[in-house]
Amino acid sequence: ARRGYPEAVYCEGKTPDQVRAIAEAVRDADQGEKPGGATLFTRCSDDHLDVLSHVFSDAAIDETARLVAWPPAPPAPVGGPVVVVCAGTSDLPVAREALLTAAYLGRHCELVVDVGVAGLHRILARLPVLRAARVIVVVAGMDGALPSVVAGLVSAPVVAVPTSVGYGAAFGGIAPLLAMLNACAPGVAVVNIDNGYGAGHLAAQIAAPAASSD
Amino acid sequence: ARRGYPEAVYCEGKTPDQVRAIAEAVRDADQGEKPGGATLFTRCSDDHLDVLSHVFSDAAIDETARLVAWPPAPPAPVGGPVVVVCAGTSDLPVAREALLTAAYLGRHCELVVDVGVAGLHRILARLPVLRAARVIVVVAGMDGALPSVVAGLVSAPVVAVPTSVGYGAAFGGIAPLLAMLNACAPGVAVVNIDNGYGAGHLAAQIAAPAASSD
Amino acid sequence: ARRGYPEAVYCEGKTPDQVRAIAEAVRDADQGEKPGGATLFTRCSDDHLDVLSHVFSDAAIDETARLVAWPPAPPAPVGGPVVVVCAGTSDLPVAREALLTAAYLGRHCELVVDVGVAGLHRILARLPVLRAARVIVVVAGMDGALPSVVAGLVSAPVVAVPTSVGYGAAFGGIAPLLAMLNACAPGVAVVNIDNGYGAGHLAAQIAAPAASSD
Amino acid sequence: ARRGYPEAVYCEGKTPDQVRAIAEAVRDADQGEKPGGATLFTRCSDDHLDVLSHVFSDAAIDETARLVAWPPAPPAPVGGPVVVVCAGTSDLPVAREALLTAAYLGRHCELVVDVGVAGLHRILARLPVLRAARVIVVVAGMDGALPSVVAGLVSAPVVAVPTSVGYGAAFGGIAPLLAMLNACAPGVAVVNIDNGYGAGHLAAQIAAPAASSD
Amino acid sequence: ARRGYPEAVYCEGKTPDQVRAIAEAVRDADQGEKPGGATLFTRCSDDHLDVLSHVFSDAAIDETARLVAWPPAPPAPVGGPVVVVCAGTSDLPVAREALLTAAYLGRHCELVVDVGVAGLHRILARLPVLRAARVIVVVAGMDGALPSVVAGLVSAPVVAVPTSVGYGAAFGGIAPLLAMLNACAPGVAVVNIDNGYGAGHLAAQIAAPAASSD
Amino acid sequence: ARRGYPEAVYCEGKTPDQVRAIAEAVRDADQGEKPGGATLFTRCSDDHLDVLSHVFSDAAIDETARLVAWPPAPPAPVGGPVVVVCAGTSDLPVAREALLTAAYLGRHCELVVDVGVAGLHRILARLPVLRAARVIVVVAGMDGALPSVVAGLVSAPVVAVPTSVGYGAAFGGIAPLLAMLNACAPGVAVVNIDNGYGAGHLAAQIAAPAASSD
Amino acid sequence: ARRGYPEAVYCEGKTPDQVRAIAEAVRDADQGEKPGGATLFTRCSDDHLDVLSHVFSDAAIDETARLVAWPPAPPAPVGGPVVVVCAGTSDLPVAREALLTAAYLGRHCELVVDVGVAGLHRILARLPVLRAARVIVVVAGMDGALPSVVAGLVSAPVVAVPTSVGYGAAFGGIAPLLAMLNACAPGVAVVNIDNGYGAGHLAAQIAAPAASSD
Amino acid sequence: ARRGYPEAVYCEGKTPDQVRAIAEAVRDADQGEKPGGATLFTRCSDDHLDVLSHVFSDAAIDETARLVAWPPAPPAPVGGPVVVVCAGTSDLPVAREALLTAAYLGRHCELVVDVGVAGLHRILARLPVLRAARVIVVVAGMDGALPSVVAGLVSAPVVAVPTSVGYGAAFGGIAPLLAMLNACAPGVAVVNIDNGYGAGHLAAQIAAPAASSD
Ligand SMILES: Nc1ncnc2c1ncn2[C@@H]1O[C@H](COP(=O)(O)O)[C@@H](O)[C@H]1O
Ligand SMILES: Nc1ncnc2c1ncn2[C@@H]1O[C@H](COP(=O)(O)O)[C@@H](O)[C@H]1O
Ligand SMILES: Nc1ncnc2c1ncn2[C@@H]1O[C@H](COP(=O)(O)O)[C@@H](O)[C@H]1O
Ligand SMILES: Nc1ncnc2c1ncn2[C@@H]1O[C@H](COP(=O)(O)O)[C@@H](O)[C@H]1O
Ligand SMILES: [Mg+2]
Ligand SMILES: [Mg+2]
Ligand SMILES: [Mg+2]
Ligand SMILES: [Mg+2]
Ligand SMILES: [Mg+2]
Ligand SMILES: [Mg+2]
Ligand SMILES: [Mg+2]
Ligand SMILES: [Mg+2]
Repeated sequence: ARRGYPEAVYCEGKTPDQVRAIAEAVRDADQGEKPGGATLFTRCSDDHLDVLSHVFSDAAIDETARLVAWPPAPPAPVGGPVVVVCAGTSDLPVAREALLTAAYLGRHCELVVDVGVAGLHRILARLPVLRAARVIVVVAGMDGALPSVVAGLVSAPVVAVPTSVGYGAAFGGIAPLLAMLNACAPGVAVVNIDNGYGAGHLAAQIAAPAASSD
Repeated sequence: ARRGYPEAVYCEGKTPDQVRAIAEAVRDADQGEKPGGATLFTRCSDDHLDVLSHVFSDAAIDETARLVAWPPAPPAPVGGPVVVVCAGTSDLPVAREALLTAAYLGRHCELVVDVGVAGLHRILARLPVLRAARVIVVVAGMDGALPSVVAGLVSAPVVAVPTSVGYGAAFGGIAPLLAMLNACAPGVAVVNIDNGYGAGHLAAQIAAPAASSD
Repeated sequence: ARRGYPEAVYCEGKTPDQVRAIAEAVRDADQGEKPGGATLFTRCSDDHLDVLSHVFSDAAIDETARLVAWPPAPPAPVGGPVVVVCAGTSDLPVAREALLTAAYLGRHCELVVDVGVAGLHRILARLPVLRAARVIVVVAGMDGALPSVVAGLVSAPVVAVPTSVGYGAAFGGIAPLLAMLNACAPGVAVVNIDNGYGAGHLAAQIAAPAASSD
Repeated sequence: ARRGYPEAVYCEGKTPDQVRAIAEAVRDADQGEKPGGATLFTRCSDDHLDVLSHVFSDAAIDETARLVAWPPAPPAPVGGPVVVVCAGTSDLPVAREALLTAAYLGRHCELVVDVGVAGLHRILARLPVLRAARVIVVVAGMDGALPSVVAGLVSAPVVAVPTSVGYGAAFGGIAPLLAMLNACAPGVAVVNIDNGYGAGHLAAQIAAPAASSD
Repeated sequence: ARRGYPEAVYCEGKTPDQVRAIAEAVRDADQGEKPGGATLFTRCSDDHLDVLSHVFSDAAIDETARLVAWPPAPPAPVGGPVVVVCAGTSDLPVAREALLTAAYLGRHCELVVDVGVAGLHRILARLPVLRAARVIVVVAGMDGALPSVVAGLVSAPVVAVPTSVGYGAAFGGIAPLLAMLNACAPGVAVVNIDNGYGAGHLAAQIAAPAASSD
Repeated sequence: ARRGYPEAVYCEGKTPDQVRAIAEAVRDADQGEKPGGATLFTRCSDDHLDVLSHVFSDAAIDETARLVAWPPAPPAPVGGPVVVVCAGTSDLPVAREALLTAAYLGRHCELVVDVGVAGLHRILARLPVLRAARVIVVVAGMDGALPSVVAGLVSAPVVAVPTSVGYGAAFGGIAPLLAMLNACAPGVAVVNIDNGYGAGHLAAQIAAPAASSD
Repeated sequence: ARRGYPEAVYCEGKTPDQVRAIAEAVRDADQGEKPGGATLFTRCSDDHLDVLSHVFSDAAIDETARLVAWPPAPPAPVGGPVVVVCAGTSDLPVAREALLTAAYLGRHCELVVDVGVAGLHRILARLPVLRAARVIVVVAGMDGALPSVVAGLVSAPVVAVPTSVGYGAAFGGIAPLLAMLNACAPGVAVVNIDNGYGAGHLAAQIAAPAASSD
Repeated sequence: ARRGYPEAVYCEGKTPDQVRAIAEAVRDADQGEKPGGATLFTRCSDDHLDVLSHVFSDAAIDETARLVAWPPAPPAPVGGPVVVVCAGTSDLPVAREALLTAAYLGRHCELVVDVGVAGLHRILARLPVLRAARVIVVVAGMDGALPSVVAGLVSAPVVAVPTSVGYGAAFGGIAPLLAMLNACAPGVAVVNIDNGYGAGHLAAQIAAPAASSD
């Protein structure tokens, strides 16, 4: 965890028993010590979700994002608004992981779905919400063209997340990753393939309330 | 050369002397034999241009496309209109190679430049010419996003040409090549990196006059 | 879906429940609204086929292509003939996906199988049907050599589809993809690995009836 | 150029004559129209520098960054401080390109050099300046380890720029690019290899003065 | 097996029956012949562990490292101390495989866990044990930055083992492999991805007692 | 050099002085010692050719293949006939290198040029010479389709040599290399990109006179 | 199937029912038509073996090579001897597939196992059998070094088969494939990864009885 | 520079002026301060050599290794012997860079050339010197097979250096790099392609005199 931000437990590759042990430690350690700040459990399998809902009776569980947060309430939002954009249902798990991460790091967040490059009118229809954002997270697979288009429309920085959606020459996300690294509009920051957590974290840092010196 | 279409001589990797020999054979063989149909010399270096302007006193020379045609006059156009689109000067050599190839194969051609993904309004301003095309050749480097956007706006097929413009993770054209193979709009045909000749040829075939049975 | 063409639902990566919901929406929305034009469901698993045959009592189901169409009747064909070619049974699912897509987009289609590069006589025996096509879709894995050979024999454009058939240095379709991008005959358009849908869509656009201006 | 930010001309791949034409247009257009905001010329060869120093008698020229700005004065800085970090002289051209870009976009910038992963004490000695930054640009080649280390020490977002410095398995910047995409500390945004301009632009957007709503 | 070192049986890809046959041969051959020197069985599945615990009633079994040794007692350690370092639980199987291999080759070994690049203070806290080592094995996935940092702190050689932990652009261990090959501190030796056995073997050879001539 | 075959000196990467020294040693050592068997100098630059023509007054020099042989006379041919096939002038240097190597290893050789996949009739016209070969070397760049076609027409083994001719997705010969490794006809042996020497050597070994036991 | 050689059915990717249908056709067609020449079924799963043993009561089944031949008797061997070499049990399936293929194509075959680069004495001990071969098939994974060593010891051509054995930077056989393409001894022919069938076929063609003209 | 070892200046990518400035600083700083320990200048171009021979009147210059050392005398050797092995002249620059680096770090070094995998007898003839080494540096390009063979013959650790020698599928050293990472004998440590400096440094650390506790 970064200095001053909540902890996240990356569950992929951990056994349910390992996750249970961590969760119990989190639950028991929380007695007063870290009164604010949820712990996030990311990339949860069904078994992980099961274990976590037993350890925490009141956890916030998002089945699409495969993310669990406890304590369940995100902090009251400060800083600028974070907008998360994606084209459709296949990119939704990554988009929601980014959204929830930024929310639990204390930002006001909004999700814009069904916005794809092959249908420009739908993007243009959402210009007001895009232009109000302090930072925009754009989640996209296949040709990875959406961040270029969005970055061309706004002045805020764009955090681009390639996804492993697709087949053949998508190469598990390499195609959109390369496209995003070569975005023809400046202002595009790239994170790892499918890394919704990292994108949300970065967006929350970017949209953090300005220090007094800023 | 394809059945019924003009010959093309690919000059890259040939010595000026080799090109001269081919050109002289073309000039001398043309006595009546193949009365219509120019021969194209593609990817000419300055030395090649020099040699060819000596062999053919009246060749058509395009310095941007590095292409020479002889006899210089393209055939009277038949079939549907071909539109060639690119974002800027770096992609222009490839775009013009496509344009000229299609023209010498007998199509009516139009060039649309300065149309990029990061400035949607410029694309939208050219919708009428795009929608009038029988086929559109889209030339793009870097994120290779332009074919997806164009294909989403028209019903005609799009021939996408990735270019080697860019640096770093553009990997000499791999980034736009992959993006185009994963275009999120259907109707995108891809050719080799920088292959303006192939794109123009393909476009001319697609826009060929319909046979009586069609 | 492209302007004026039917919708397609890409089922891979969707749960049976998600596909059911989409299918029910399609079925219910069709009350008069879009009287012509089938919806295609592509890349269906057995579970998807099951769900779809329950939602639509009269859907057209192709188990080889893993494709479902509803309403089941393709439109009366217009435009030029589309010919789909492949070497054998392993490439058949992709070939049939291309064939059915073009048919549901309103083209007359013909399938030519068992035509491989290692047995030229079988290709030469099919020359009449190949030369009658307005566009030819060539589906091939391994060395991806078939499009070069076919393109050398006809004047129509060739849409080449690499398949992930093979092992080792086939690299899941990279070998034929590269071969096709480097086809030594001009007139070869390439789509993504295993992308029969895209190839059929593109072929239907290429073989569309000429506009009056063409 | 992004909405509200200065224009940049990417000179690589342009002839000196093309650059001269653009520069003259910039110089002549500036009569009152865009009173603030310098135009940046990036990736200038010696010939480009020569041409530009003739067109603009008073341009700001940085030979290390290969960057020219005109009018020469950057705007008065607003927003938060940008810190640019690199390990040594080989990464300096990219680092300075980032620094100058951010400065001409209106940020207060500071450069920290000679800070490498193999000598932790030098990084730790600069902690106060690092912790005062609103955003840190970290430029690194070879193992690309520096952004992970820096991101672990601060709460601000880190913009990581891989460089093509090195040989063999550095693969022209692929090694640090991959390392940065897999940074073990969250909060690392990655841009293209050697893309100092993009990093500086992004940093300026991140450190922009907060809107009143933030 | 190397001259003078124990044999190792790589179980991955062998059926339980094949492993049983080898194990029985080892057990029966050991009658007096090779009185010292355990045989190692590496990369054991649960089925392999099962078979081996039946063939050898007294084998040493490490479930984390998936390694079995018989006879169970490692030799009395000679030569210099080997320290094995990793950042967390995901790298532990590889780290323990290295540790046990070096121990069964006759070295004194120590394991240092929970030492990551994003938390420098934890590394610095372990400096005394790191500086006492004759050789350090550093196991790391993701950005593979840990060997560079460790090598910068000590004079002993570092054996770096990239792991396949991570996702997306970690590419199954390619990212840390490349980072390690480009370590910015000299003195880093790299072995194959996940190759804990090879790293432990190499470390044992490096830390072997000096010959009289040294 | 293989047991019983002539030596070859690979000149690429050697200075003219280094080549001169080797050539003088060859010339002086040949006094009676190895009365038969020429030494081959391959991949000669113009400078290398110059040096070699001075050391050997009577060397055989092939400027296309960049190959020098001394003594100049190849041995009287034994074994079966070797046929070398390629499509055009760009592949000729590699084809001639193969041809000459096989000839100097003692085989009867024939060269067939201007035989490409896009013009099947030219291949079919050469069937008699192809079917008379004991082994066929097929040199091809771009789509690398020629070996598949040739191997489908004959019973003899085919040695396939990919060339680095082409651009873009030819990737310096990777495209034809992969195609050849995936040749859809059995009986295709592959050597390194541009490795005419290796192909000629292998062909000479395959076509060697049968031992009495064969 | 090549001209004059038996047919092979590649079963991977075929359903048991598809294989059954082919097998029944083979069985029923064999009534007198092709009295000599077995049909080979390669890459059989357990289910394929099951089906084939029901269709053919007397098939030859090799469980290691996953190969079935019917009629079961190979032809009486003619031509030169084929030797197949590999280092151990992991490469045995590929080695046996090569061996059986060559045998059913009519060659005398011998298998040499347990011969690895790390134990030169074992190779040297088998020199007589290696030197008696007309062609040697060398099967190897990991570093793919064995073909170089073997080719340096004999005058016969070597057919090298990389295998997908190994992990990490073996990259499913890419490591030995590249090593073999760069073998430092001439006379090494490479086939696809794991392609024992292709290697055996090629070896049988190379060792075929010389034609009268040879 | 590592703790306790001499400094090295990597000259590639530095201008002659930059190298001169560093060299003058080294010369002037040496007044008493660091009485032992030469500074190494590696990867020197002809211009760098020129500059350095002017700054240091008595530098040790190795034109093959492109390495300059000053003060010129290496320290009196301590620790175990380092043996550097390579196959021929193309690998010699890297081999000598390793040799000199180890010598200037205080080891006794020996060079063994003309030892290749295709001629085993030459390796076997050098067994005594190989077996006397405390560590062996093996430099090899192409198939990268030499380290596997050497490691199989000795008990000492092997440091393997892939070189960029070769063409085509050697891919600038990737082929031997992968082979070495997959060496079939344990005890092989790999460094970056062409990294003779790193290999020599690592070898010197491995062969360092044992601490009293060892
Ligand atoms: N979904 C995720 N993707 C990438 N990194 C993550 C994710 N979730 C957590 N992390 C990072 O992984 C760290 C926890 O790893 P671990 O200690 O193995 O649970 C956290 O501090 C985060 O930096
Ligand atoms: N610029 C080009 N890019 C790709 N292929 C080309 C180009 N120009 C010509 N060709 C193809 O190359 C063939 C001529 O090659 P060549 O005989 O070597 O001159 C023509 O028939 C075209 O198919
Ligand atoms: N194990 C194998 N590996 C590679 N190619 C094979 C193999 N077995 C058969 N083949 C080839 O595949 C062809 C049969 O393919 P199919 O018609 O799909 O059964 C044969 O003619 C052989 O050329
Ligand atoms: N030939 C070389 N190959 C790789 N690394 C080197 C080489 N020479 C010097 N180095 C490393 O580069 C550092 C010096 O880099 P620099 O400060 O840019 O001269 C040294 O401390 C060494 O760690
Ligand atoms: Mg923007
Ligand atoms: Mg469209
Ligand atoms: Mg054609
Ligand atoms: Mg931080
Ligand atoms: Mg150190
Ligand atoms: Mg054949
Ligand atoms: Mg040999
Ligand atoms: Mg050894």
